[in-house]
Amino acid sequence: MAANVAKRVLVVAGAGNGSGTGAATARLFAKNGYHVALIARGADSLNKVSEEINAAGGQAAPFPLKSYSHEDIATTWAAIHERFPKPEYEVRAAVWNAGHGVWKPFLDITPTDVQECLDTGVAAAFAFARHSILAFKENEIDPTNGKRGALIFTGATASIRGNVVTSAFSAAKHGARALSQSLAKEFGKQNIHVSHAIIDGGILTDRSKADTSFIADDNVRLRPESIAKSYLYLVNQDNSSWTWELDLRPAHEKW
Amino acid sequence: MAANVAKRVLVVAGAGNGSGTGAATARLFAKNGYHVALIARGADSLNKVSEEINAAGGQAAPFPLKSYSHEDIATTWAAIHERFPKPEYEVRAAVWNAGHGVWKPFLDITPTDVQECLDTGVAAAFAFARHSILAFKENEIDPTNGKRGALIFTGATASIRGNVVTSAFSAAKHGARALSQSLAKEFGKQNIHVSHAIIDGGILTDRSKADTSFIADDNVRLRPESIAKSYLYLVNQDNSSWTWELDLRPAHEKW
Amino acid sequence: MAANVAKRVLVVAGAGNGSGTGAATARLFAKNGYHVALIARGADSLNKVSEEINAAGGQAAPFPLKSYSHEDIATTWAAIHERFPKPEYEVRAAVWNAGHGVWKPFLDITPTDVQECLDTGVAAAFAFARHSILAFKENEIDPTNGKRGALIFTGATASIRGNVVTSAFSAAKHGARALSQSLAKEFGKQNIHVSHAIIDGGILTDRSKADTSFIADDNVRLRPESIAKSYLYLVNQDNSSWTWELDLRPAHEKW
Amino acid sequence: MAANVAKRVLVVAGAGNGSGTGAATARLFAKNGYHVALIARGADSLNKVSEEINAAGGQAAPFPLKSYSHEDIATTWAAIHERFPKPEYEVRAAVWNAGHGVWKPFLDITPTDVQECLDTGVAAAFAFARHSILAFKENEIDPTNGKRGALIFTGATASIRGNVVTSAFSAAKHGARALSQSLAKEFGKQNIHVSHAIIDGGILTDRSKADTSFIADDNVRLRPESIAKSYLYLVNQDNSSWTWELDLRPAHEKW
Repeated sequence: MAANVAKRVLVVAGAGNGSGTGAATARLFAKNGYHVALIARGADSLNKVSEEINAAGGQAAPFPLKSYSHEDIATTWAAIHERFPKPEYEVRAAVWNAGHGVWKPFLDITPTDVQECLDTGVAAAFAFARHSILAFKENEIDPTNGKRGALIFTGATASIRGNVVTSAFSAAKHGARALSQSLAKEFGKQNIHVSHAIIDGGILTDRSKADTSFIADDNVRLRPESIAKSYLYLVNQDNSSWTWELDLRPAHEKW
Repeated sequence: MAANVAKRVLVVAGAGNGSGTGAATARLFAKNGYHVALIARGADSLNKVSEEINAAGGQAAPFPLKSYSHEDIATTWAAIHERFPKPEYEVRAAVWNAGHGVWKPFLDITPTDVQECLDTGVAAAFAFARHSILAFKENEIDPTNGKRGALIFTGATASIRGNVVTSAFSAAKHGARALSQSLAKEFGKQNIHVSHAIIDGGILTDRSKADTSFIADDNVRLRPESIAKSYLYLVNQDNSSWTWELDLRPAHEKW
Repeated sequence: MAANVAKRVLVVAGAGNGSGTGAATARLFAKNGYHVALIARGADSLNKVSEEINAAGGQAAPFPLKSYSHEDIATTWAAIHERFPKPEYEVRAAVWNAGHGVWKPFLDITPTDVQECLDTGVAAAFAFARHSILAFKENEIDPTNGKRGALIFTGATASIRGNVVTSAFSAAKHGARALSQSLAKEFGKQNIHVSHAIIDGGILTDRSKADTSFIADDNVRLRPESIAKSYLYLVNQDNSSWTWELDLRPAHEKW
Repeated sequence: MAANVAKRVLVVAGAGNGSGTGAATARLFAKNGYHVALIARGADSLNKVSEEINAAGGQAAPFPLKSYSHEDIATTWAAIHERFPKPEYEVRAAVWNAGHGVWKPFLDITPTDVQECLDTGVAAAFAFARHSILAFKENEIDPTNGKRGALIFTGATASIRGNVVTSAFSAAKHGARALSQSLAKEFGKQNIHVSHAIIDGGILTDRSKADTSFIADDNVRLRPESIAKSYLYLVNQDNSSWTWELDLRPAHEKW
């Protein structure tokens, strides 16, 4: 089955909060013809996102996992491949949007904090990337964009700058960014596109909307739908001119 | 006349080589409804690009200038405003794609080389940016993307890394990149979007096609049409999540 | 007891290979009046370095540990404080020079590789930094340099750039670099100086000397004694002008 | 005459304000046995610095120039070589500390502002670097540090970050930084050491002392004497482990 005939699948990890970047990405890709495999801890919220996409005419399936351990991620990908088997389906895009945030003065950070940041932020990203790359390597080069697949990492300000209360979070985000760069260099030659988006500002989610100090103004807070558009753009970039890294911030952000 | 009614104008500087980034950007924006003001030294090539766009159903006008001096740039912008006056037209996008390249061992670089790189690569970029910003400030915020206007600088590998034979070129490209960052920070607050694209690889132009060592393979050389797509994407990004800097390179580029 | 009367202690982790950076740093600081606490896995080599320093008229003590776990690092620091108690001694400098290197194509990297890189390269660095900072906070500001203490992280090219075979190593080195920056920003205000040295090239150790392809030429390989001089310089910098990050490379290194 | 017998000369440009980095560097190097050639616009202040160094037992000579044009810099270097001829003397170190600062909102910046920043900050740096490199190439490799000479550029926060009121200044500082990197890469192979210091904070000079809001506290303002120590350290680094770039900031600086 030719690359342009198989149904395209997007795998997105960290889609649990239905109002955040992962879910917005899933919705937008679904509207653009992708079948969407949703990964997150916590089945309830995940099922809701999935049902909502399906109700809107999209094709989504939830893949809740207990933890972002290497084993659980492997099991999840096996389930995804079972649900979306080749040659009918092909995983063409993957978004790593999971992570664990800790904001504390350094001396308040516990070994467990560090471990959780590294486990979810780095080790799990390695596992997710591994399955993404392995899936892409099975694909032919898509004649429309010269790619076998595209993997996007969601980064943050902390990906490029350590700061006073971000030591653990930032260490993990720097680690994932390094991974994305290594992958971009190693697998570009195989027409696999890896990129890294620096989300440099606060994101407007249901959770943040509940905080009245968090202004719902497009000039000061990133909208998940807008981030999702950038992810679709990255996935659509062709092999002659593609991007490893871009920053995204609201117009009035001070940086 | 409302922001969404006026005809959108793109001003692109450095459109002289009809097969390069500037001309490809002009063509793509013309296809997307922009009226295009083309700036370059040398009228012949410029007229050809302009006529070609018009023949294809687009709207273009050539603005040849003698030099990229502050005065000539001012005169050119005055002519552009005369040709595309408000309120019928609004300059909503500008691309700075000009520059002067010198690749020589440091001791072979002359004061004139340095001067030409700085004049065209930095001082002229200041002048062009000034007129772009002044034009954007006259616009209302576009309700579709939350912007008054978007200015893009075409950068290069040399924008972020000095290297053995690039001292003069790289000094100028670093300077223009700094300018783009200052502008992004100062004018973001006014909903003016300034971005910088790092073109990290060789571009496939007519000139490079003539060099048989320059392989016409999308995996190894950037296609101007593909760069242009990224520029359109940048211009279309909305105010909640826009990009200052992205890199663009071919899939197989070693970096 | 005043800051300039107590005996200064340097704690250096990763001093196991007697011919590397850690041992050279220990030797140089011992010659400059520091008492040196040496930490490494593997007692034999560590004892040898310690004895050699003592034989040369210095003051060193070995603190072998089984692993770089949080607990073992805590136990080791307790032993160091017992051996070098206040107010007779004061830990004024600490060097984090440990790490775990893996150089493999991404798909050959195992979950264990990733875990070991993160454990030794990041989690252990957090633990070591914690005890360093806690020790420094007990010190008065030294009137000769305006500091309570100085902590140095040994970085590598991989600290700032992911590359084809360095994904796991680089993720860990990026993480430690982020930590060093967070610490520098948080504890500078308390006159604790944290810095990060990017060792951008191969180091000439006994191990590398055994490899005949590894040329013993100061122009192409870093000498540990020379790195140690930079560490002493960093520790001696005063509070009006100190450095977070510097790169170190041999004269003929291509970069 | 062997490298270790000839008298060492330091050439420092931008030594005019007797209380700043240039003069402090001159004083420190003079105390360390260097003959010092002082370059600045304005003879009065320059003569005073020179006389003061000589009165303190050092060896200094003033070389006032009218402008930092290519020609004036060439004439000045010719005078320096005449005053400090080989083989009795050898220029072994050079510090580029000149520049032109403009801090204004972008739209207030004039073409003249841009030109002056680029002339003094970039074009003059090229000319000064050229004469430094040419002088160093005449030297044998110094057996004590493996170098023919060392050239240091004084940078600023603006060298790595454009900001709201620094567009012109920052463009120039970025340009000089790019130059320093190109030179470091090209001439490292010839054992010429080029480095770049990012002065990330305010410097305590006579001028700033007059501003009562400018606190004379080592924790918040860089002392020129302390910067000078870092310059001497850079010049003394040997060829096995030398630095291209380091940052310098006061302990309590927010960054």
